[in-house]
Amino acid sequence: MAGSTFGTIFKIMTWGESHGAGIGVVIDGCPAGIALDEADIQKYLNRRRPGQNRYTTARAEADAVEILSGVFEGRTTGTPISLLVRNQDQRSRDYGNISKLYRPGHADYAYDMKYGFRDYRGGGRSSGRETIGRVAAGAVAMKLLQELGISVRAYVSAIGPVRIDHSHMDFSLIEESPVRMPDAQASERAAAYLEECMRAQDSCGGVVECVVEHVPAGLGEPVFEKLDANLAKAIMSIGAVKAVEIGDGTRVSETRGSENNDCYASDENGAAYKATNHSGGILGGISDGSPIFVRASFKPTPSIAQPQSMLGQDGSCHEETIRGRHDPIIVARAAVVVEAMTALTLADHLLLAATSRVENLKRLFAK
Amino acid sequence: MAGSTFGTIFKIMTWGESHGAGIGVVIDGCPAGIALDEADIQKYLNRRRPGQNRYTTARAEADAVEILSGVFEGRTTGTPISLLVRNQDQRSRDYGNISKLYRPGHADYAYDMKYGFRDYRGGGRSSGRETIGRVAAGAVAMKLLQELGISVRAYVSAIGPVRIDHSHMDFSLIEESPVRMPDAQASERAAAYLEECMRAQDSCGGVVECVVEHVPAGLGEPVFEKLDANLAKAIMSIGAVKAVEIGDGTRVSETRGSENNDCYASDENGAAYKATNHSGGILGGISDGSPIFVRASFKPTPSIAQPQSMLGQDGSCHEETIRGRHDPIIVARAAVVVEAMTALTLADHLLLAATSRVENLKRLFAK
Amino acid sequence: MAGSTFGTIFKIMTWGESHGAGIGVVIDGCPAGIALDEADIQKYLNRRRPGQNRYTTARAEADAVEILSGVFEGRTTGTPISLLVRNQDQRSRDYGNISKLYRPGHADYAYDMKYGFRDYRGGGRSSGRETIGRVAAGAVAMKLLQELGISVRAYVSAIGPVRIDHSHMDFSLIEESPVRMPDAQASERAAAYLEECMRAQDSCGGVVECVVEHVPAGLGEPVFEKLDANLAKAIMSIGAVKAVEIGDGTRVSETRGSENNDCYASDENGAAYKATNHSGGILGGISDGSPIFVRASFKPTPSIAQPQSMLGQDGSCHEETIRGRHDPIIVARAAVVVEAMTALTLADHLLLAATSRVENLKRLFAK
Amino acid sequence: MAGSTFGTIFKIMTWGESHGAGIGVVIDGCPAGIALDEADIQKYLNRRRPGQNRYTTARAEADAVEILSGVFEGRTTGTPISLLVRNQDQRSRDYGNISKLYRPGHADYAYDMKYGFRDYRGGGRSSGRETIGRVAAGAVAMKLLQELGISVRAYVSAIGPVRIDHSHMDFSLIEESPVRMPDAQASERAAAYLEECMRAQDSCGGVVECVVEHVPAGLGEPVFEKLDANLAKAIMSIGAVKAVEIGDGTRVSETRGSENNDCYASDENGAAYKATNHSGGILGGISDGSPIFVRASFKPTPSIAQPQSMLGQDGSCHEETIRGRHDPIIVARAAVVVEAMTALTLADHLLLAATSRVENLKRLFAK
Repeated sequence: MAGSTFGTIFKIMTWGESHGAGIGVVIDGCPAGIALDEADIQKYLNRRRPGQNRYTTARAEADAVEILSGVFEGRTTGTPISLLVRNQDQRSRDYGNISKLYRPGHADYAYDMKYGFRDYRGGGRSSGRETIGRVAAGAVAMKLLQELGISVRAYVSAIGPVRIDHSHMDFSLIEESPVRMPDAQASERAAAYLEECMRAQDSCGGVVECVVEHVPAGLGEPVFEKLDANLAKAIMSIGAVKAVEIGDGTRVSETRGSENNDCYASDENGAAYKATNHSGGILGGISDGSPIFVRASFKPTPSIAQPQSMLGQDGSCHEETIRGRHDPIIVARAAVVVEAMTALTLADHLLLAATSRVENLKRLFAK
Repeated sequence: MAGSTFGTIFKIMTWGESHGAGIGVVIDGCPAGIALDEADIQKYLNRRRPGQNRYTTARAEADAVEILSGVFEGRTTGTPISLLVRNQDQRSRDYGNISKLYRPGHADYAYDMKYGFRDYRGGGRSSGRETIGRVAAGAVAMKLLQELGISVRAYVSAIGPVRIDHSHMDFSLIEESPVRMPDAQASERAAAYLEECMRAQDSCGGVVECVVEHVPAGLGEPVFEKLDANLAKAIMSIGAVKAVEIGDGTRVSETRGSENNDCYASDENGAAYKATNHSGGILGGISDGSPIFVRASFKPTPSIAQPQSMLGQDGSCHEETIRGRHDPIIVARAAVVVEAMTALTLADHLLLAATSRVENLKRLFAK
Repeated sequence: MAGSTFGTIFKIMTWGESHGAGIGVVIDGCPAGIALDEADIQKYLNRRRPGQNRYTTARAEADAVEILSGVFEGRTTGTPISLLVRNQDQRSRDYGNISKLYRPGHADYAYDMKYGFRDYRGGGRSSGRETIGRVAAGAVAMKLLQELGISVRAYVSAIGPVRIDHSHMDFSLIEESPVRMPDAQASERAAAYLEECMRAQDSCGGVVECVVEHVPAGLGEPVFEKLDANLAKAIMSIGAVKAVEIGDGTRVSETRGSENNDCYASDENGAAYKATNHSGGILGGISDGSPIFVRASFKPTPSIAQPQSMLGQDGSCHEETIRGRHDPIIVARAAVVVEAMTALTLADHLLLAATSRVENLKRLFAK
Repeated sequence: MAGSTFGTIFKIMTWGESHGAGIGVVIDGCPAGIALDEADIQKYLNRRRPGQNRYTTARAEADAVEILSGVFEGRTTGTPISLLVRNQDQRSRDYGNISKLYRPGHADYAYDMKYGFRDYRGGGRSSGRETIGRVAAGAVAMKLLQELGISVRAYVSAIGPVRIDHSHMDFSLIEESPVRMPDAQASERAAAYLEECMRAQDSCGGVVECVVEHVPAGLGEPVFEKLDANLAKAIMSIGAVKAVEIGDGTRVSETRGSENNDCYASDENGAAYKATNHSGGILGGISDGSPIFVRASFKPTPSIAQPQSMLGQDGSCHEETIRGRHDPIIVARAAVVVEAMTALTLADHLLLAATSRVENLKRLFAK
């Protein structure tokens, strides 16, 4: 089934394996007239690129993007935008033990059960390199959102037991922190914790948060295509995510209605404003104009350097070690992926919401 | 946009407002040959019906379903199944204050911003009665799953601060508990807590868990149509859900890889088995044959009997009370909705997975 | 598979069998704010109703439509519009021979091969009554088109060997003619030809033409979602249609480029205008602002009163006669179905085209 | 809108302009386990390549395809297959007059009205080179069909006034004929007619027919996703097609039911067989196991070397000549495009039909 396709109007199709010729995406349905060049996309790809620091895998890839279609004289034409990133580091190597073993925490077994065989080189399509297509397409969605003044920003709010202090959050620190935490103290503690994990040949989980600002009210469709439902799908589709929360998230289950309802207050001019934002900017699945908050919990990198008990194709149990170097955490590089999926969801919903009223159509088509 | 449509092959379209003629759903894409009658559907609708006990709204509706098409001689024909539940309790009443006010925690403001006006009677399409269409369609999906031996069961695991003890869980208690908790002690404590909330003219949140057993491995599609991504969308699309978790959910962010990976062990015959199920039955977005665990956090019922500060259409602030009686919690009646959305998602993925291998097509079409 | 669903944004799902409880349609994605009541829909249903004259089946059905949802205070709300027509003439009768025979020219055999069994009463889902859902939804699409000044009109241009003279066409005659021909002389000759067919216990084919006027330029999407491609699908999906033509249609294969190209000429003010319209208003799949012409060739009604050689479920040949009275032609009642499918296609493309330029989004969402 | 996407399960997305970096397609949803290499695709591309003979444009392009993903150890993996054909002949040249003029018979004006501007180099996305993506994807669909014994073959049946004699049709002549006519005499007459057109600086139209053999009964979905409806869309989406016919096509409008119905006859063993195939293998939108016949009427190449009256961006009329060499007919190279679109439609319907019965699912998923 066509599982590598995302979106209804702003639709993308991603493709590529970690050890094939390359990774890419085609965007079908991007409106015409948006200024776009390769640098617009490359800056997002650089944020997910491996080899950025000691907490990311050393696999060295430039991940340079080429725009193959859909842009003419510096602007999108409304026709499909094809983006290509060639793989460079495709050393042929011995996958001998992995090709016949199902690694814990990986999709190996599930792929074999589904397809009858699998591309076992580097995880094939379940590789983290698959997210290149998401980030490249997300960069284009971001350009569309920027035309309307909407901003999307993701950061790391927890690594293992280390949590940031939201009251001291400073977004200007995100790209300075090797773990993308907008809190200098937490960032240092997280780095220390990661060193400990690496010494123990282990990995750890974390949390990415994403905030969307200046969203128009009215995005999202009742009943199944709610904005939060689509954000949940978009974020949960990122490998390693096991939970998605909107606004106060899991905490709502412990609150009372009088605490959780976002009541209104009056400003000095008598105008009402939403005094709190427990809902995270979405009510009944539709944006209410407040900032949108999404939170994703990532599991630890499943590839760890210590021996583990794996399932063999023959049905027996094998104690084996996965070779190669792997990121001890996913979240630092995944923040830009969360941003991309959020931007793609919002771009699609913006196009969907454009036709909610017959008045809108009259404004656009009346002569 | 067509937001009331769900599924790719097993596709449903729901319709209806709480104060209109009725609520219904059409199922387009259900395979032929499944035994189906109205009782199969009614038993699920009865579990979400109002008026079951003192913790559910007193609005009395029989919610009797009629099958209008798609069944012949007791079996599904493969063509659309139309299901209708007429509304009975449509007393015309004075919505005066609500029609011009935006209630906190409700979709009122967002709907008006989207459509330019709204059906303010009982919340219109954002009413909880909308879930009748989900539950009716879910009952049909359940019949399909049962043909393949798959079971889906949801229950309440928390109400406010009261959590069940999973080590003492007894599914036979679910329907005996007025709050659908499979733990007699927790159920009693929850009832006491609810009485307290009701005395305080307040409501409270809760958690629904759902377990799917005997799922074949191989359901779910890489990359965006992952089984967990679609479950997340399905569950988050239920009004009042603010978080969706798969397997260990948010807890994974605090664990290490060596703890979170589900390693294998050998049984007495030397056969390997998955020793743990932190992943909740889904790896890389594809079912691995283990039970699937999904968890949904519901916010408190936003309609409470105490005065609240609301936004008026004129932009000013109004202290008002919402009339009528409302459920103090959502979760007890929402469990069957979670079950329905889970069943709909699995039914669709079952049909999608059927064509993953060319061998499957040869088995079905070879002469 | 979900074959009873049509459209991407303006999406409909039809349901119902000729001998079940009723026929209906749900429209999901209609913009809010369109004035709509049952009379708007009933007038189109009346044009396809049986029993209008001696060339239509005597089966007497009022086909009265009920709006079940999606309209509040006389206007569409943006949420699903559910329309229901109850079947009245469901006499139980003996289908004995037909239930075990596959009638020539009907879908009986194909349905049995597909589903393993079928609802043989009156053709089940392949009955002509299925078009009630199309016409009812088409009436809503027509209301949307009217808001933008677009008109859609279909008429019969041929019955068997009788063709209208396009140079004498008078649209005011359509509803006066029992065969819906906009040419009084051709209408009389067609009536005489039909009498001859009926005496011979036979049926005959015909042609429906449809013209769309005042369409904005720019509707239709390159490459696969061309406006003409979607019109072709929409029209070919009507039972009994075997050919769809746009503009000059099949005749283009015999012409030269210099004849077929629509060149421009200058009017007295020096302004250019398209001097001809061989293209039928669509170039490269996109409307060019000229009137759109679509033509559908219908096969003769397959149910005829003379004995025919049929296939039995046992694989042997049976000489049998189909009981009951049937229309000798389809086209007179099918014209409104062609109108409906054309309107549904245009309405969807109108919504799709609204987001082709980023400027459109700025106009709608800029604060 | 996402107009460059085709198919529901076997889904493709094509991209690329004639004067950009290249042309390509991604196939998302192809089943795993099909043997596939570049030669399987190249042989189809070679049949649509320019420069094959004097009736095709001299633009020399090797059109060599590269498989970028989705194939491992010679077999499809079930994940997206990305195919790339680099453009070679991208000479920068002066498009001066064409960039400001709307050519008759071309999509220039419609694109500008839709998007606000266009890539005027070689027609941009409305170029005939767009069909490379269709043909490459069609080759993969053909591999899937071949696994099930289904064959698809297209040929030219008419060029201008020259028609083949179906009673003398010989498929072995198709690739020997420079105009792809399976009738040696007609092929010679067509060549003579083309010479005459070329001398007159003109082009001419033609007809492509396509026959599908050994199709299982039961493909196609009632009501809107009928097999013939989707074939009509697929074929009408090819640039320059103005009519699509199934089986007897437009001729059915002049026949009687007793002539058009395909009755059954008995063979020597008493077994019934369909004595005729006026329906073209599809009844009620579902394949009946007989060969499927589809016919497409192509308009003459709109680019001709004689001066024509064009519309200027300023609204005035301009007498201009289109530079460059162009094919005098489209059909000879378009036959493989019709084949491709037919194969893509059938492949998708094969996957859709696999889940029509619950018995099929039991066969695939029962343990």
